[in-house]
Amino acid sequence: MIKSTLGSTDLAEAWASIEPLIEKTPVMTSGHLNEITGAQLFFKCEHLQTTGSFKLRGATHAVGLLPADCPGVATHSSGNHGAALACAAARRDLRAEIVVPENAGAAKLANIRRHGARVHFCRPDQASREAALDALAQQGLEAIPPYDDDRIIAGQGSTALEMFTQVDGLDALVVPVGGGGLVSGCALAAQMTKVPPRVIGVEPLGADDTARSLALGQRVDNSDHHPDTVADGLRALIGKRNFQLVSELVERVVTVSDAQIMTAALAIWRELRQVTEPSGATALAGVLANPNLFADRRVGVIISGGNIDPESFSAALEAHGRE
Amino acid sequence: MIKSTLGSTDLAEAWASIEPLIEKTPVMTSGHLNEITGAQLFFKCEHLQTTGSFKLRGATHAVGLLPADCPGVATHSSGNHGAALACAAARRDLRAEIVVPENAGAAKLANIRRHGARVHFCRPDQASREAALDALAQQGLEAIPPYDDDRIIAGQGSTALEMFTQVDGLDALVVPVGGGGLVSGCALAAQMTKVPPRVIGVEPLGADDTARSLALGQRVDNSDHHPDTVADGLRALIGKRNFQLVSELVERVVTVSDAQIMTAALAIWRELRQVTEPSGATALAGVLANPNLFADRRVGVIISGGNIDPESFSAALEAHGRE
Repeated sequence: MIKSTLGSTDLAEAWASIEPLIEKTPVMTSGHLNEITGAQLFFKCEHLQTTGSFKLRGATHAVGLLPADCPGVATHSSGNHGAALACAAARRDLRAEIVVPENAGAAKLANIRRHGARVHFCRPDQASREAALDALAQQGLEAIPPYDDDRIIAGQGSTALEMFTQVDGLDALVVPVGGGGLVSGCALAAQMTKVPPRVIGVEPLGADDTARSLALGQRVDNSDHHPDTVADGLRALIGKRNFQLVSELVERVVTVSDAQIMTAALAIWRELRQVTEPSGATALAGVLANPNLFADRRVGVIISGGNIDPESFSAALEAHGRE
Repeated sequence: MIKSTLGSTDLAEAWASIEPLIEKTPVMTSGHLNEITGAQLFFKCEHLQTTGSFKLRGATHAVGLLPADCPGVATHSSGNHGAALACAAARRDLRAEIVVPENAGAAKLANIRRHGARVHFCRPDQASREAALDALAQQGLEAIPPYDDDRIIAGQGSTALEMFTQVDGLDALVVPVGGGGLVSGCALAAQMTKVPPRVIGVEPLGADDTARSLALGQRVDNSDHHPDTVADGLRALIGKRNFQLVSELVERVVTVSDAQIMTAALAIWRELRQVTEPSGATALAGVLANPNLFADRRVGVIISGGNIDPESFSAALEAHGRE
C-alpha cells in the first residue's frame, strides 16, 4: 500500500521554502453570510494566489526540490495544477509540458499557455491522463503529479498553516476535495496546532468517490469513477496517499449538488464580490448545506481557485440553477 | 454661481468622523497589468466597501451631520448612493426613501432594499429624478443629494486620503466621473499631499458632459445631456459644485467607449479576480486607452463599485464587445 510518510517537519520546511515565492493571500469575511449561517466564516482567498489557485504552493515546492540539471517537468491537470506547474517551472527556466483533458475550460488553458508551457490534449478520463503523462516521463521529463505526491501535499498544507497565522482559534476548516492534495495537506497542518480544528471535506455529488470510498472503507478505483460535475477542478479520483490521510485525519466528507455549488458561487459574487470557479465555491456550499455542523463556530472556508470566464460562469449558473 | 467652499480641514474632519464606520478597503496590484501598461498600477478596491461602492463614505458623513430629531432622509440614485444612504440611515435608525430610475439594475435595487429603504421609481432622466426627490423633501425628509453637496464631496475624498496612507508617492490618481462627487473629493484630497498626484478623470463617451463642459468652459445643462452608456453609475450630469472643483483641480478628463470599459472590466475579472460593475472599470479603461499618460508612473486607479449580477455582466460583455 502506498502511504504518505509526511510529518509536521516536512510541512514546516515546505512552507518556509516556498513562502518567498507565493502570495500571502488575504482572508475575507461577510456579515451577511455570517447571519445566514449563524457561524463566523473566514474565507481564505486562494483564488488570489498567483496563477489563480492554491496549486502554486505544491508546484513551487516540488519544482524547488528538483536538481539543477533536470531537463523539465510534466503533469496532467484539468488546468490549475498545470498553470501552477508552468509558472513554477518558468521561474526556474525549466521546460513544462502539460496533459489537459480536451473538455478543460478556456480560462484554464489560457492560464497554462501564458506561462510558456506546451499543452497536450487527451480524452477526459483518468486512464488517458495517466497514459499521456507516462509518455512524457519516458522522454526524461520529471513527472509532477497533481496531488498523489508527498511534495505536493506538503506544499498545499501551507494554505492552512498560513491561515492559522491570520485567524485565531478556528473550530473547523472546510476544504474542497478532488484529488485530495489540498484537503490532506490541510489536515496534516491542522494537527500541528495546539487545538486542531476539525477538518471537513466537501465533494461534488457528481464526483463523490471520496465519500463513497470512506463509506466502503477502501478507495474505489477508476472503473467506479465517472465524474459529472460543474466543479471541473474536483473531477479527479482521490489519490492513494490522499485517501490514506483523509481516512485518518478528516472528520467527514460531505457532498453537495451542482446547484448548491452555483448558489455558493453566486453568494461569493454578491457578498464578497470575488470571482470564483465552481470548485472554489464548493467549500462554502458544504457550509450552507450543513448549518448544524457550523453554527456558533469559527470556520475557515477555503476558496481554492478563480479561473473561469464570465460566459462560463453565467452558463454554469443557467445550467445548474440555484437553490 | 454655486461654489464649493470645501477646504482641507473639511476633508480631514469628514474622514476622521466616518473612519470607524467604513471599511478600509484594500489596494491590489497585478504584474500582468503593469506589464501591459508599462505603469505601476495600484487598484483601490472600493467595490469591497460596505454596500459595494465608495458611496457609503459620503452618505455616512452626511447622515452623521444630521440632527437627532431628523425625521429621515431621501435621495435620487441609479443605485449605489441609494444603497449607501439606506445603510447609513439604518445605522442611525432613520427612515430612508430612494428615488430610482426605472432602468436601474436588479443588483442595485436589491442592495437598496436590503437596508430597509423604500424605493420610488421615476423616468430615467435628470428632471424626473429631481422632481421626485423634491416631492419627498416636501414631506419633511432631508434630501441628501448624490454628489452636488459639500458633505458628500468631503466624504468621498476620504477614498483618496485613505489610499495615500496605503501607497507612497503616487504620480497620478485616475477616477471615474459621473456626477463628480468622487473625482472632486479626490482632487481636493490630492491637494493635501506634499507632492500632489495629477488627478485624471475618466468619463464614458456616452455620458461625456464633463469633457464637453470643460471644452466649452461652462457646464452643459440637462437639455444637452442624453446619457447612453453601459456604465450606469456614471450617467448623471456633473453637479455644479463638482464641475467647479473639476475645472480648478483636475488635470484632464478623458473619455472611453463602452467597449473599452468592458475590456477593462474583463481585465479586472481575469487579472484581479474581482467583480466590478462597468462604472468601476472605467478608470482602468482610461489608463489602458492612454498608455503615454501613465508609462513609468505610479498610478492609483479607483475601482468604484461592484454591484452587478453575473447575467448583467455577461450581457454587457456580449453587447459591447471587447477591444
